[in-house]
Amino acid sequence: MTTLQDCRALDARDPLRPLRDLFTLPAGVIYLDGNSLGPCPKATPARVAQAVQQEWGEGLIRSWNSAGWYDAPRRLGDKVAQLVGARAGEVVCTDSTSINLFKVLSAALSIVRADQPQRRVVISERTNFPTDLYIAEGLCKERGLELRLLDAEEIAGALGADTAVLMLTHVNYRTGAMHDMAAVTRRAHEAGALVVWDLCHSAGAVEVDLHAAGADFAIGCGYKYLNGGPGAPAFAWVHPRHADRFWQPLSGWWSHAAPFAFTPDYQPAPGIARYLCGTQPILSLTALECGLDTFLAAQPLGGMAALRRKSLALTDCFIALVEERCAGHGLGLATPREHALRGSQVCLTRDVGAYAIVQALIARGVIGDFRAGRPDILRFGFTPLYLGFEDCWNAVEHLRQVLESGEWGREEFNRQHAVT
Amino acid sequence: MTTLQDCRALDARDPLRPLRDLFTLPAGVIYLDGNSLGPCPKATPARVAQAVQQEWGEGLIRSWNSAGWYDAPRRLGDKVAQLVGARAGEVVCTDSTSINLFKVLSAALSIVRADQPQRRVVISERTNFPTDLYIAEGLCKERGLELRLLDAEEIAGALGADTAVLMLTHVNYRTGAMHDMAAVTRRAHEAGALVVWDLCHSAGAVEVDLHAAGADFAIGCGYKYLNGGPGAPAFAWVHPRHADRFWQPLSGWWSHAAPFAFTPDYQPAPGIARYLCGTQPILSLTALECGLDTFLAAQPLGGMAALRRKSLALTDCFIALVEERCAGHGLGLATPREHALRGSQVCLTRDVGAYAIVQALIARGVIGDFRAGRPDILRFGFTPLYLGFEDCWNAVEHLRQVLESGEWGREEFNRQHAVT
Repeated sequence: MTTLQDCRALDARDPLRPLRDLFTLPAGVIYLDGNSLGPCPKATPARVAQAVQQEWGEGLIRSWNSAGWYDAPRRLGDKVAQLVGARAGEVVCTDSTSINLFKVLSAALSIVRADQPQRRVVISERTNFPTDLYIAEGLCKERGLELRLLDAEEIAGALGADTAVLMLTHVNYRTGAMHDMAAVTRRAHEAGALVVWDLCHSAGAVEVDLHAAGADFAIGCGYKYLNGGPGAPAFAWVHPRHADRFWQPLSGWWSHAAPFAFTPDYQPAPGIARYLCGTQPILSLTALECGLDTFLAAQPLGGMAALRRKSLALTDCFIALVEERCAGHGLGLATPREHALRGSQVCLTRDVGAYAIVQALIARGVIGDFRAGRPDILRFGFTPLYLGFEDCWNAVEHLRQVLESGEWGREEFNRQHAVT
Repeated sequence: MTTLQDCRALDARDPLRPLRDLFTLPAGVIYLDGNSLGPCPKATPARVAQAVQQEWGEGLIRSWNSAGWYDAPRRLGDKVAQLVGARAGEVVCTDSTSINLFKVLSAALSIVRADQPQRRVVISERTNFPTDLYIAEGLCKERGLELRLLDAEEIAGALGADTAVLMLTHVNYRTGAMHDMAAVTRRAHEAGALVVWDLCHSAGAVEVDLHAAGADFAIGCGYKYLNGGPGAPAFAWVHPRHADRFWQPLSGWWSHAAPFAFTPDYQPAPGIARYLCGTQPILSLTALECGLDTFLAAQPLGGMAALRRKSLALTDCFIALVEERCAGHGLGLATPREHALRGSQVCLTRDVGAYAIVQALIARGVIGDFRAGRPDILRFGFTPLYLGFEDCWNAVEHLRQVLESGEWGREEFNRQHAVT
């Protein structure tokens, strides 16, 4: 049995413990929802205030150059690159995940179908995050293609001569199950397809090596594990072997080879810059850069490898504590036990009351979230930058108390009767 | 002859003068580039700090509801609506101008061509802002359509049975020339085409009445006259008669009829919400809202009608002063003298030295900008919210001194010899 003392001992010898001081966490909160919105780094308020008051307020239009605003999408992209096994000059931070997916999926389809128009199927996972499916559905409708949604275990067998693109989210948002990026990419390439990876629940959460996996395209989120602030811009990566082969349809001026020449005709910029589009929200990018810098601070402590080790230790600890201390309360485990298949979250299932239990936990300051489905899911994200093992203990202790006290039942009653 | 005393007298009786106090303007700067990046409202730093520290730092994920983040695109859209003759619920603030143009132009083409596939031409103006042309070029290439670029005076005659969409920027970014929105829209409708208006240099700058003009679609910028901060999100408006007729291809989850149902298939939201796409940059939207609120503060003083009156008085004053005090220096006027054809800027031309003259003015604290072309343009934006008539006098006095002292010649010499 795991004890509170065990957890404290793990914290005491955690080499990443000092990183917690880089973040603002409200008193009385155990934040297990960093996979929805990462918390605020301590450096962010002053840096954003500087951007507002000095760069904008005093510098005005001049700051596009003097404060590095114009270069921000590429400068931040280089920082993201270090977290996902990409190289400098290959990533831009820009727009939203949905829009970046539209760009890279468009380009991937154009590249494949230029030579092989018979490839007219986009394959994805039925439980992929919905916005990915909506974007793919729209693009397929637009181009007269087919979007085929499968269960994870059906995918390898379905890749074939009609497959244009396999589009997957690396770590499933509901269950935390992780694909083997290298193996899946290899299988898709053998079938002649390109692969688009969504790294929303991977970047900053697990080790990703896009080049080692031979990946083609990737996009991801700035506001989850990267701690970039609410709605922070997303990122896009394109393997250099594809970057200059096609353009993408959101061909705004920031993607032009000579944006300030103001020529009436479009010439795509070389490389990843053609995946930009319009003018970017600088204040939100400024906050995102502070989030990325917390990862740079983790580099001397072992970087993503060390963060991943701790992430697995945290999720192992949480799973063990739930099973030891909350047994008999009808909880199941949706997240894989095998490390190689697990992201940085733990998802519990329960046939009834999951929503109310999550609400009761939030009322106690343990912030996770609820995902409806069959079964319903209680989702807990574990971010090794700022969480420790005692947090796991305390979260599970609250969960145990909620389950044993029947608070969740009252919550459920209130909800059903619209009392609150 | 206009005198400094005349200008001071105009300021003294200017009912909009108190609005200047809503903005931070650096000491020693006369800011005539608010049509590139509006200045920082005084309320913005504290409001953004609150969003970072309280809403994000303390509220964390809970602020999507409790702090109104999720509703921000529509709440801000309602504020924009008041400035452009739209109604509540018809506008969203989201993404960039380029991306919103892609959405509305896609939808406009789909609507027209659903019934009339022979309409395969998009008409625009050769001197439209380039990103508009690039987006239209990409979309036309994607759909096998033709983008036809014409001079302004050729457009009315070119509208015909093959025209699908007329896409124009209301106020030209280079010259400040303004189209008659109602007349042009009527002419396009008579030809069976739809019209997409880009309001980047109109919203907050001139009176716009989209409903009165019978317009179909409009988009515009948040960081110019709306003072929303660097790269602030843009806006999109769709006339209710079109809003539910088609979807747009950037069909991300924020445009879904039930975004939190997480269904795998896409169902567009009713109305303007279907023109959203992915998660929005909340910190940048927060700053934009402060910019919009400065216009709400102008409402009791007469709103856009009063702002337009002052804008025309400012540009009249600037033109008169340039002609009276800078005669014989080779300056021409690119901006129409006729009020009905003039936006909120004055563009001067000069065969040589325009770049250097603008640089010399900037060195003196008079910030305008330079637009290359034949002829080159010195561009000065006039924003009645925070500029006065004495500013006009002082700006022209600096221009006179630059021209007479030959400073610009030294600047030009330095630039050509790469001394600086």
